Amino acid sequence: MRKLIVGVMGGGEGASEDVCRLAYELGRLIAQEGWVLLNGGRGVGVMDASAKGARECGGLTLGVLPDRNAADASPYIDIPVLTGFGDGRNYINILTSNVVVALPGRTGTISEIALALKNGRSVILLDFDLGELFSEYRKAGLMISVRKPEEAIAEIKKILADTTQFF
Amino acid sequence: MRKLIVGVMGGGEGASEDVCRLAYELGRLIAQEGWVLLNGGRGVGVMDASAKGARECGGLTLGVLPDRNAADASPYIDIPVLTGFGDGRNYINILTSNVVVALPGRTGTISEIALALKNGRSVILLDFDLGELFSEYRKAGLMISVRKPEEAIAEIKKILADTTQFF
Amino acid sequence: MRKLIVGVMGGGEGASEDVCRLAYELGRLIAQEGWVLLNGGRGVGVMDASAKGARECGGLTLGVLPDRNAADASPYIDIPVLTGFGDGRNYINILTSNVVVALPGRTGTISEIALALKNGRSVILLDFDLGELFSEYRKAGLMISVRKPEEAIAEIKKILADTTQFF
Amino acid sequence: MRKLIVGVMGGGEGASEDVCRLAYELGRLIAQEGWVLLNGGRGVGVMDASAKGARECGGLTLGVLPDRNAADASPYIDIPVLTGFGDGRNYINILTSNVVVALPGRTGTISEIALALKNGRSVILLDFDLGELFSEYRKAGLMISVRKPEEAIAEIKKILADTTQFF
Repeated sequence: MRKLIVGVMGGGEGASEDVCRLAYELGRLIAQEGWVLLNGGRGVGVMDASAKGARECGGLTLGVLPDRNAADASPYIDIPVLTGFGDGRNYINILTSNVVVALPGRTGTISEIALALKNGRSVILLDFDLGELFSEYRKAGLMISVRKPEEAIAEIKKILADTTQFF
Repeated sequence: MRKLIVGVMGGGEGASEDVCRLAYELGRLIAQEGWVLLNGGRGVGVMDASAKGARECGGLTLGVLPDRNAADASPYIDIPVLTGFGDGRNYINILTSNVVVALPGRTGTISEIALALKNGRSVILLDFDLGELFSEYRKAGLMISVRKPEEAIAEIKKILADTTQFF
Repeated sequence: MRKLIVGVMGGGEGASEDVCRLAYELGRLIAQEGWVLLNGGRGVGVMDASAKGARECGGLTLGVLPDRNAADASPYIDIPVLTGFGDGRNYINILTSNVVVALPGRTGTISEIALALKNGRSVILLDFDLGELFSEYRKAGLMISVRKPEEAIAEIKKILADTTQFF
Repeated sequence: MRKLIVGVMGGGEGASEDVCRLAYELGRLIAQEGWVLLNGGRGVGVMDASAKGARECGGLTLGVLPDRNAADASPYIDIPVLTGFGDGRNYINILTSNVVVALPGRTGTISEIALALKNGRSVILLDFDLGELFSEYRKAGLMISVRKPEEAIAEIKKILADTTQFF
């Protein structure tokens, strides 16, 4: 039985300390559940912080990088997947994730949320207010908002209980 | 001297008749300027309508398709670029476009706007209200809103006058 | 009715003068037939020479580039398709080509021939000896060897006469 | 310190029983060294057999799939990376591998060997005779031929001893 892969998206260089702290906590909780953490793999912002949290709790971390080498990979990434495809790798991020948690970010994060919803991945917004954007997916239950990492974990468990799609 | 490539994004199956009419008019005007029209290439919605408009005015139409064959390509596409990369091709769409015009759409269109802005392409929103989304790019002058196809053309000419980047 | 897209593959920086002369002649003949020439788009070797030949005869040239910008594109390329995907773009090259002509090259060219055959594109080897490599495709009629550009054109016409797949 | 990622390439549906047995043995040895096994992820041929061998020895298996879902993934793959990019994923396979072992295969395998060499990855041919193909890389020491899985492991250790590039 495969482990669940949880994609964690969010800001890179521009992520605030508060957002990075949330990402770190989320990473810890994901690892404690025995799930695999996937992110964009670079050593900044939400990517670095969430991988650090997961690694510290013994979790496995997968980083899907835009580059052709691992020079900019976070040191907390166990498996750097080198796509060489720039932002085109965002599509691979969301396809590979069984469920996506999105923290505050900008264009890159928004593109990942959009592609995730379009491709049927549930998206949990963690302290990220998108206003009315994608509200049709919220109504359909595919996009959910929470304020704390613990709530994101609880929502993932609910999704798992409702589905057999991942296994 | 290369011709300008104008990317036209917007809804697919779900595009309204009004939106398709705008796309058709925009396609006509792009062709009349002698520019190349690029879109996602499928035979539905904004893709089909904009290609039809451009083709009827003798323009060249480039469709960057998600598929491995041209079965679903619009008949108005001259050059079907087969990427075989699903929604991952959205990144190729925006990189290849010198400037992007976005009509109303949903997740696919939003992902393209996000990737365009992230990669420095100007985005002209044609009758597409995004609220406060990406407002930092609006302030920086990279995202502009217009109501009519003629205004979109005028904005593209302003961008061209301000830059030498495309040639 | 769409124009045929002929992919021209072969060496880049390492291509000899003789090979470039063949590529130039081939480009001229492709344009004279009214076909679209597609190649990898960079301003070196077979890519540059074949695009130059086609352009001089009024043909349309499409360059599928590995880069995120057109800085290294051949000046003879009309439409630079920017994939940002490095050598991953080789797959897009062959999918988009209705038929492939391969001149002498090395690893990049071999990868394109392999992917073309695997995906059902006919490959015409122009003065390129591959020994027994891919001989099962030669037996099946999908890979053909010729010595002169004129012969390559004649073979493409035979393939066109045998098939309705492109239109 | 990251674990070494060893890419194992080779035939799919067409792989012989002998080749699959070699792949299975190789997978076991890779896992016993504590290395990560990467392959194309499908449940056939060298992909399935090498993943089975690695899994049985407690190794971690990464499958970079051409598809948008994991339906065709080998049950022995722990982490299915869903690229949705068809054979375009071959480029991601070789970029992500620190070193590549290639067993007998056809066009797909040849394309991966070509892309690996072009991008500076060492390729160890395991009981796979390529004649004079890529002989310039053999002379440069980037392509090596062995007959047994144990010899492939020994060659990987030599490469590791000569380099610091992976860590």
